Amino acid sequence: MSDDLRYMRLALSLGRRGQGNTWPNPAVGCVIVKEGRIVGRGWTAPGGRPHAEPQALAQAGAAARGATAYVTLEPCSHHGQTPPCADALIAAGVARVVVAAGDSDPRVSGRGLAMLRDAGIVVQTGLLAEEAANDLAGFFLKTEESRPWLTLKLASSFDGRIATASGESQWITAPPARHLVQAQRARHDAVMVGAGTARADDPSLTVRDFPPVRQPVRVVVSRHLDLPLMGNLARTAREIPVWICHGPNPDPMLRDTWEGLGATLLECDLQSRQICPASVLRRLGEQGLTRVFCEGGGMLAASLLSAGLVDELIGFTAGVALGAEGRPALGALGLDRLAEAPRFQLVETRAIGPDVFHRWTRI
Amino acid sequence: MSDDLRYMRLALSLGRRGQGNTWPNPAVGCVIVKEGRIVGRGWTAPGGRPHAEPQALAQAGAAARGATAYVTLEPCSHHGQTPPCADALIAAGVARVVVAAGDSDPRVSGRGLAMLRDAGIVVQTGLLAEEAANDLAGFFLKTEESRPWLTLKLASSFDGRIATASGESQWITAPPARHLVQAQRARHDAVMVGAGTARADDPSLTVRDFPPVRQPVRVVVSRHLDLPLMGNLARTAREIPVWICHGPNPDPMLRDTWEGLGATLLECDLQSRQICPASVLRRLGEQGLTRVFCEGGGMLAASLLSAGLVDELIGFTAGVALGAEGRPALGALGLDRLAEAPRFQLVETRAIGPDVFHRWTRI
Repeated sequence: MSDDLRYMRLALSLGRRGQGNTWPNPAVGCVIVKEGRIVGRGWTAPGGRPHAEPQALAQAGAAARGATAYVTLEPCSHHGQTPPCADALIAAGVARVVVAAGDSDPRVSGRGLAMLRDAGIVVQTGLLAEEAANDLAGFFLKTEESRPWLTLKLASSFDGRIATASGESQWITAPPARHLVQAQRARHDAVMVGAGTARADDPSLTVRDFPPVRQPVRVVVSRHLDLPLMGNLARTAREIPVWICHGPNPDPMLRDTWEGLGATLLECDLQSRQICPASVLRRLGEQGLTRVFCEGGGMLAASLLSAGLVDELIGFTAGVALGAEGRPALGALGLDRLAEAPRFQLVETRAIGPDVFHRWTRI
Repeated sequence: MSDDLRYMRLALSLGRRGQGNTWPNPAVGCVIVKEGRIVGRGWTAPGGRPHAEPQALAQAGAAARGATAYVTLEPCSHHGQTPPCADALIAAGVARVVVAAGDSDPRVSGRGLAMLRDAGIVVQTGLLAEEAANDLAGFFLKTEESRPWLTLKLASSFDGRIATASGESQWITAPPARHLVQAQRARHDAVMVGAGTARADDPSLTVRDFPPVRQPVRVVVSRHLDLPLMGNLARTAREIPVWICHGPNPDPMLRDTWEGLGATLLECDLQSRQICPASVLRRLGEQGLTRVFCEGGGMLAASLLSAGLVDELIGFTAGVALGAEGRPALGALGLDRLAEAPRFQLVETRAIGPDVFHRWTRI
């Protein structure tokens, strides 16, 4: 059992390598073990294909016969653009398959496992299922609720401010925290900001500290498409995708201009004259995104929190005070009572350079 | 050397037992060791007398002869209400005295050590001097700058709010954090709040979770003395001291009423029509306070931060969002530039129950 655990942990860590790179597919890991030796390792390739299993099987070659395969997600059973992984495992002569999480898609769930069992393979499920479900949560949410996992980042002074009254915000946190933000961007399919942030900061929203396999999509929520046409996002929209979630009936000239610049426009519904955050996530899910990293600003963050759409919260607190006239990390939530306030559960906290890092999940 | 360190660490931890209880005197610890055995331990008694050394010597009795005494602060050399501790160590026949911190009072500094050396005692100084200086910082500040050490507590939602728009604030943090706040109160000579907090929360500002040796003084900063006359502070001012830092020319009726209720009134200077925070701390230092724990509200906290008077910052961050309409943890600081913002250095961060605890010191 402890060997099984060890190999599944390895498979999970391999799977995580794909996070941010495999959408619309899940980031799966696979390890093949023959007589106590690891003979194959694989993880979903950038773009979602090839899957983890055929890559691990290819590495294993003939050694796969009689081996045990550890897979973080139930092997697929349907013919898509690749043959089913369940077939590949059967064809390779694997004797035993250990699976962490079942597929949440009811059309698929259990079918891959049944195929394996029908072929006489010993199948075991549920090992480290919770870890796997957490790693694959974005894929499951997309399948089940047609929306991606949403991580909200808030980096603020210890009094919850993200800029001075005059808008100065560089820098509140130190390089180690900003480096971690880059790593978080790389582990998500997309980075999302509101129109105010796009206008105020002219961000590029790319991963710069280390070359990612696939730059995350840049998503801007802008009801009226009134974003700087000469800014970093406009300038680079052809190289790295820019998607703009806008409201109904946008200005035709702005729409044509942004399309001409290479942006993808996604029309979303309104809710009390603001873009409905649930509609934004639905559109992003329809486009295949599984993990979205929202970096503010305060209005967008507040609307996501109010709608109960924040799955994970990543906070950075700097040892600096900006005072009540500074710009708040969160916009208004319209709470009547403290009991209505969105609450999160602490997962971890630690120092990161001179700042505090804290991570929370929805309760 | 490692034995010396171990005994001095013990002396420091004994000294800390007195924090909050010994003002106007420093909270000193003393350990007496004879041939590898601890024969005496002492720490400054509540109210500041007797000092640590005579108590440890009394415990050691005849065993003090030829022993080593570890003292966190240079033994006193002057005749006050007690005979000098240097004399007591000499009379007891101690062979060696190890001291962590020298006395910062220029009238005293070095004289205790000289008395010991003149008596033929081996004297060693500076062992764990930094820790001792930190523990005794309030006493040193009172001596050198005529003001107490100031710890500012900020307990807020992760967006830096301390109450909803309607003022609801119970509870944002959970019992473990609130228990730690009680422990912090007990380690300070006084707990201080602004008038707004006194009016809004009607706090009692006492240590309730465990019986302290001496309840901290309750300090309220209120320019006009317009505090609730039927509140918790007014009702209990005879049992546990209430000091009110007010502005010039208070309403005579309010002044008489508060004095009649048992409060001590301390007149402070104004600065731009607000009570000058430096003047408040000077008054408190004149009264003998060495350590003050400020629990807000936002206006008082902001004025202390702006004046550069916050020595330590203790933050609690709860996993709850209150939004921009919530009450801010800090009032306006009037910063023109980010570079002017008060900055603090992280000392520690950890989870405390479901909340994050972080502690910072001035840079």
